[in-house]
Amino acid sequence: MAETNKDHLVQSDDPDHPANLIPRLCKQFYSLGWVTGTGGGTSIRMDEHVYIAPSGVQKELIKPSDMFVLSYPTPKYPPSARQYIRKPHELKPSACTPLFLAAFERGAGCCIHSHSQWCVLVTLLVEKMHGKDACFEISNIEQIKGIPKGPGKGMLGFHDTLRVPIIENTPFEEDLTESLEKAMEQYPDTYAVLVRRHGIYVWGETVAKAKTQCESLDYLFQLAVEMHRLGLPWTI
Amino acid sequence: MAETNKDHLVQSDDPDHPANLIPRLCKQFYSLGWVTGTGGGTSIRMDEHVYIAPSGVQKELIKPSDMFVLSYPTPKYPPSARQYIRKPHELKPSACTPLFLAAFERGAGCCIHSHSQWCVLVTLLVEKMHGKDACFEISNIEQIKGIPKGPGKGMLGFHDTLRVPIIENTPFEEDLTESLEKAMEQYPDTYAVLVRRHGIYVWGETVAKAKTQCESLDYLFQLAVEMHRLGLPWTI
Amino acid sequence: MAETNKDHLVQSDDPDHPANLIPRLCKQFYSLGWVTGTGGGTSIRMDEHVYIAPSGVQKELIKPSDMFVLSYPTPKYPPSARQYIRKPHELKPSACTPLFLAAFERGAGCCIHSHSQWCVLVTLLVEKMHGKDACFEISNIEQIKGIPKGPGKGMLGFHDTLRVPIIENTPFEEDLTESLEKAMEQYPDTYAVLVRRHGIYVWGETVAKAKTQCESLDYLFQLAVEMHRLGLPWTI
Amino acid sequence: MAETNKDHLVQSDDPDHPANLIPRLCKQFYSLGWVTGTGGGTSIRMDEHVYIAPSGVQKELIKPSDMFVLSYPTPKYPPSARQYIRKPHELKPSACTPLFLAAFERGAGCCIHSHSQWCVLVTLLVEKMHGKDACFEISNIEQIKGIPKGPGKGMLGFHDTLRVPIIENTPFEEDLTESLEKAMEQYPDTYAVLVRRHGIYVWGETVAKAKTQCESLDYLFQLAVEMHRLGLPWTI
Repeated sequence: MAETNKDHLVQSDDPDHPANLIPRLCKQFYSLGWVTGTGGGTSIRMDEHVYIAPSGVQKELIKPSDMFVLSYPTPKYPPSARQYIRKPHELKPSACTPLFLAAFERGAGCCIHSHSQWCVLVTLLVEKMHGKDACFEISNIEQIKGIPKGPGKGMLGFHDTLRVPIIENTPFEEDLTESLEKAMEQYPDTYAVLVRRHGIYVWGETVAKAKTQCESLDYLFQLAVEMHRLGLPWTI
Repeated sequence: MAETNKDHLVQSDDPDHPANLIPRLCKQFYSLGWVTGTGGGTSIRMDEHVYIAPSGVQKELIKPSDMFVLSYPTPKYPPSARQYIRKPHELKPSACTPLFLAAFERGAGCCIHSHSQWCVLVTLLVEKMHGKDACFEISNIEQIKGIPKGPGKGMLGFHDTLRVPIIENTPFEEDLTESLEKAMEQYPDTYAVLVRRHGIYVWGETVAKAKTQCESLDYLFQLAVEMHRLGLPWTI
Repeated sequence: MAETNKDHLVQSDDPDHPANLIPRLCKQFYSLGWVTGTGGGTSIRMDEHVYIAPSGVQKELIKPSDMFVLSYPTPKYPPSARQYIRKPHELKPSACTPLFLAAFERGAGCCIHSHSQWCVLVTLLVEKMHGKDACFEISNIEQIKGIPKGPGKGMLGFHDTLRVPIIENTPFEEDLTESLEKAMEQYPDTYAVLVRRHGIYVWGETVAKAKTQCESLDYLFQLAVEMHRLGLPWTI
Repeated sequence: MAETNKDHLVQSDDPDHPANLIPRLCKQFYSLGWVTGTGGGTSIRMDEHVYIAPSGVQKELIKPSDMFVLSYPTPKYPPSARQYIRKPHELKPSACTPLFLAAFERGAGCCIHSHSQWCVLVTLLVEKMHGKDACFEISNIEQIKGIPKGPGKGMLGFHDTLRVPIIENTPFEEDLTESLEKAMEQYPDTYAVLVRRHGIYVWGETVAKAKTQCESLDYLFQLAVEMHRLGLPWTI
């Protein structure tokens, strides 16, 4: 594979090109506490290419040239058609790749993986209160309106109950794929899946949607933890 | 409507022109956690024009050209005189518009809508402790002096009790208008109205006053939540 | 008074000149939550001049030209020798001025007034636990070593007990002067005085010392609140 | 000693040269709350030189010219071979120096000393729950995977238990050396040692590893404090 020939894929004057946007987003996510200590990651699909931040690096320092690029002819293609067409030397591809692809298969244009502590705490509180099979539920908070009701269904209303499924963590990140896909099937309207003791995967049709949905969810998880401390229930 | 002809309304070399100031303020409010995930908003009145940030966008990325402009001949005009004279393509006007106008009718020059979690938590704690009809009350904290006693009455003193009314949230933001105006009538000295499970509307005669009053209120709400956790009463 | 003639007092190419340094410090203090909503303030003495940030303005936006300058021939002069020699139009002098001067009389080169919530909470917790006459006490925390033992006595040691006196707040800030000076006499080794339900005054021989001592104190107050929540005592 | 002749040691156009990198890291650590009020510090070894930030200065303002440089021919040399070859005038060498050297003796390329409050709180909670001889332990949290299992052993797994030894603080920082080295012997796989009521020393083979491991540990300590507050155990 002549990797050097593929550098044009990550060179663009457009500040919103995925190769420029992923570094900027990762820097912002770092300051939000989502990608501390090389954790977390981000991926954007543009046409027949998927851009992915590398694994095990300081996310606030990523450069366009660090980007992995995967061929992605179109959703619903056989997975065998997916292969790296650009692999930076000395960098490892993200173990989140199959999880990001699961989101792209559902029509996503961007997928964010956050290690935010509010996600971890919420998965622990749900387990403690309702057991391992329960999902996170909250209602009657304005910020819920920042989350879609489901594909093509508009946004959730104030009185609606937001539900986010929770899957168990596995020793190897790629082994989450099966349970993530199962959760996607069980909750066909969700744009996010929490991973117990780990974090969250959030996706959206566009970068802006994925990012703002991830922000709204993080806001709701933080609020839920504070509410729990103050003896206030999450649903009414 | 020849919208393109109205671009001069949002083009100015003055960094404090509303079209330049709203983007700068929104960026600052984003870092304060007030407009996470497209939530919240800001509006400034300058002479016969009202400038409003659009709905559903990343508030930290707003540009002058994204601004909506409403004709606003003068307060106390029939509401029918208000109409959009600049509407950016592909952007939605803010659902907060009638609420911002209610503040301008009271002589405000700027109105800020924040989704700060401290606002949401305070409305829940007041309801839990004193019921749905109670307002938020705090006294004997220095920062209270950052809030006016009422129009033309100077600032609150250290021993005064700050009261902020709380209205119930509604599924559609524009439906808050009636109860917001009722709270304004019931509390003629207030420069802010909390919305339960949602956030707050804060206004002031100038941008600086609206912003610093919103900061002082946010400080007091955060302090109140921390005091509650530590078993310290809000009034003495 | 020909105020315009005094502009040279606030014009300097030296980034560490008080007229340039106070705006930079205030911006940093804003991001630390010490001067929210026009609260707090800062003053620096250089030779026979005292520079003071104005009252009632957004502290993160202060410019060199906003600075008040007071003649200050030398410490121990009759207070009548102190007078404003530069007063910016349309700005109000800080009500903290007599309190800053009290610190300069004790040989300070800089005095910082912070409204940090950790200060307010600590004054309330001390009152609740030990009554109105008690001071704040903490020991056996490394950060204590960032606070001087007293003028000319070196820094506190790890096993020493840091004591910070607390005075009661008054409706008008200038009325704090008498009790502040009394606390300075009672605690001749202190470089800081807490004001109940209000904040703190911290001073130092240099700007760097005042600032880093204020940071160390704020760190210790925050830690003390967290320790209290976790049932951990402040002294052993 | 002709100190001025050694200025070339701290002059480089490479932004990742230790003399440029330490100031940048210290600024970042300041914003993370690790080096408040002149606390904490950082040191990098490059070939036969060790670069150390000075003591008692504002860490966010350090310049390359402030750097101390120590000759460090190679690990396992007699300690007598270590001596300052560059000492900036008017600055004091860091009292952490022997502690940094202890890490370099174990093959580290960078050592970070943080005063993060989460470290302090965790050492107090461990003492309260398990006594003075216990170490910090946490398991089944994804972020654990950001910490190595030990030299040449790869990273910890999700189900592994992370153990960080805790040593008692001493009045003088250099007196920690003996107990730090003892903890290093007792826990040959650790890359970090907590100091009760003080902070932490974290090291790594490279700057990136030391920094991201320090971030992961800080994340875990903060999470542990929050978990404790919510009644959630650290290990399962």
